[in-house]
Amino acid sequence: MKREVSRELVYRSRQPDNLEGPRQVFDASVTPVEAFFVRNHFDVPEIDAESWRLSVEGNVERPRELGVAELDDFEHQTVRATIECAGNSRAHLGERAQGVPWRDRAIGTAEWGGVPLREVLDEVGLGDEVVELIFVGADRGTLETNDGGQLEMSYARSLPRPKATAEEVLIATHMNGEPLEADHGFPARLVVPGWYGMASVKWLSRIIAVDQRFDGYFQTEDYATWVPEHDLVVRRPVGPMAVKSHIGFPIDGQSITAGEAVVLRGYAWGGRGNIEAVEVSVDGGKSYEPADLAGTNHPFAWRAWEYEWVVPDEPGERILCSRARTGDGEVQPDHHDWRRGAYIVNAVRPVKVVITGE
Amino acid sequence: MKREVSRELVYRSRQPDNLEGPRQVFDASVTPVEAFFVRNHFDVPEIDAESWRLSVEGNVERPRELGVAELDDFEHQTVRATIECAGNSRAHLGERAQGVPWRDRAIGTAEWGGVPLREVLDEVGLGDEVVELIFVGADRGTLETNDGGQLEMSYARSLPRPKATAEEVLIATHMNGEPLEADHGFPARLVVPGWYGMASVKWLSRIIAVDQRFDGYFQTEDYATWVPEHDLVVRRPVGPMAVKSHIGFPIDGQSITAGEAVVLRGYAWGGRGNIEAVEVSVDGGKSYEPADLAGTNHPFAWRAWEYEWVVPDEPGERILCSRARTGDGEVQPDHHDWRRGAYIVNAVRPVKVVITGE
Repeated sequence: MKREVSRELVYRSRQPDNLEGPRQVFDASVTPVEAFFVRNHFDVPEIDAESWRLSVEGNVERPRELGVAELDDFEHQTVRATIECAGNSRAHLGERAQGVPWRDRAIGTAEWGGVPLREVLDEVGLGDEVVELIFVGADRGTLETNDGGQLEMSYARSLPRPKATAEEVLIATHMNGEPLEADHGFPARLVVPGWYGMASVKWLSRIIAVDQRFDGYFQTEDYATWVPEHDLVVRRPVGPMAVKSHIGFPIDGQSITAGEAVVLRGYAWGGRGNIEAVEVSVDGGKSYEPADLAGTNHPFAWRAWEYEWVVPDEPGERILCSRARTGDGEVQPDHHDWRRGAYIVNAVRPVKVVITGE
Repeated sequence: MKREVSRELVYRSRQPDNLEGPRQVFDASVTPVEAFFVRNHFDVPEIDAESWRLSVEGNVERPRELGVAELDDFEHQTVRATIECAGNSRAHLGERAQGVPWRDRAIGTAEWGGVPLREVLDEVGLGDEVVELIFVGADRGTLETNDGGQLEMSYARSLPRPKATAEEVLIATHMNGEPLEADHGFPARLVVPGWYGMASVKWLSRIIAVDQRFDGYFQTEDYATWVPEHDLVVRRPVGPMAVKSHIGFPIDGQSITAGEAVVLRGYAWGGRGNIEAVEVSVDGGKSYEPADLAGTNHPFAWRAWEYEWVVPDEPGERILCSRARTGDGEVQPDHHDWRRGAYIVNAVRPVKVVITGE
């Protein structure tokens, strides 16, 4: 695809193209489309809206094919949701990390508009035995697998039935009030608020209701982590976003003036339950103090926070940290857990500032 | 472990030690222990028979711990079974193949003696919901995963309930009439006739009855292949042995005399159903003729075959091939399917001989 790259976006890989947002991502509660990160697994498919069809199949009572007109017949809904790539921030893990080397801006928040998925699932009628729904994109290609194999495949991801039928999940056709752009899944994509971005399948072409867990490439070899079970470890697909926060101001390496009062600010998101608190450390994580939550709470969007800091009168380097906590008591960890590979990189991220005398 | 390496065995990797059988493996229907391949994933655990315990746990009515004495209380049984490593023959796939570079002799046939697993499962009482049994070895260690992670784990593998309760599956304590050697799982291992070797967990320490499919390392990242499902591809554990045959005589590169009558021989094994036919080609696979099945049929052991060939009076190179077929019509393929990675390498293997004038 020929892409008019916004000067706002930064390439992190090409063919497939993966682009990260600019620093300004952390300046606004809703991310402009041109500053929204782009994650592609294959070439962007060219889709003609007239001929596009979404097939709803598998264990359903009334299989259907929907076109743009049929989707329009459903009632539409808007959800503000933050989408973060499951590999966001992995560049900080060093060379050991596999995958697109995202820094911290493979994240954005949009007002997503479209049809609640469960309306469509209600209409086709899910069989009693259905445990998962598979979502297949129109993007496909050939990948080399870790074991030396080669595999031609479509992008596909599944959701457990309870999440697929939750009210917040959309077949989205709009982003910030405008029709989706090709890079973001035109004409329709899944949007799964609360889950990492890999679940929000773009260029949606099939929905398959299945009675067994789906073990596709993008939830076994890719986008999966190791978790303890039976005193052993098992492979599980990456799913819900873990709790995390980011310092938008100041940025790493920034100089600030001794003695001044500055407002540290950023966002916090993810985790089960709302963001209940954000704490800030100005001594490299030794001690933390509460920040103020700002703006309004949207259950699936990031929450702004601020912390007023009187910069000490001691020139030199200082390490700032932020740490978020949810209502369920989930807190950002201090260190990355490598059982996750280079996914779910939500450990507290130190930001170095340089205090200068005036 | 300090190992007295038989001069018969050939190292294919060290730490963990993996050893392949000698050419003579294909000279006898039952493989002597000293010529039987050794596949280790971690260091061989040192186990004292007095203190060894096998815990049977999970969704069972009467969890138990068995020692050597308790195992002896069950009725014993002997099964002749061929065990082949799932990666056997991968060295022929070239550099693209990952894993221990086995040639063709990570295979052997033994008379396995021990307690039918289903006797033990009957005694503990499996819950109605149980779908799989997990078998855990006493061997453990740390592995680097494909995604850059590090994972400490035990060797563990599961079987679906129908196979775990089949009459041929043993908790084996003996091999060819002698107690198991350390390399082969002393004091007790699982033996799963009909499945590749990774299922026959050595140094058995736990059996866990579970209500969900198990997604351990050795059936997702390792020992798994890609198979089609829903017009997509999914990851599935390697399981039953595919149909395969091997030419034991002559060997690759061997010289034979023009005009003589020689008996080509070898073994055929694997597949669903018994070996029904073996065919031989003396023209590089262009045409095949039936070979004779020799010896007796043991349902889980390889079957000997022979083919009398009057070597043509034309000095030069010739390519010989063998191809097995089961009663279910499963036939060896001509080419490797890379969706399997470097597992289940059962394609027809050409053997080159040099015909010399006398």
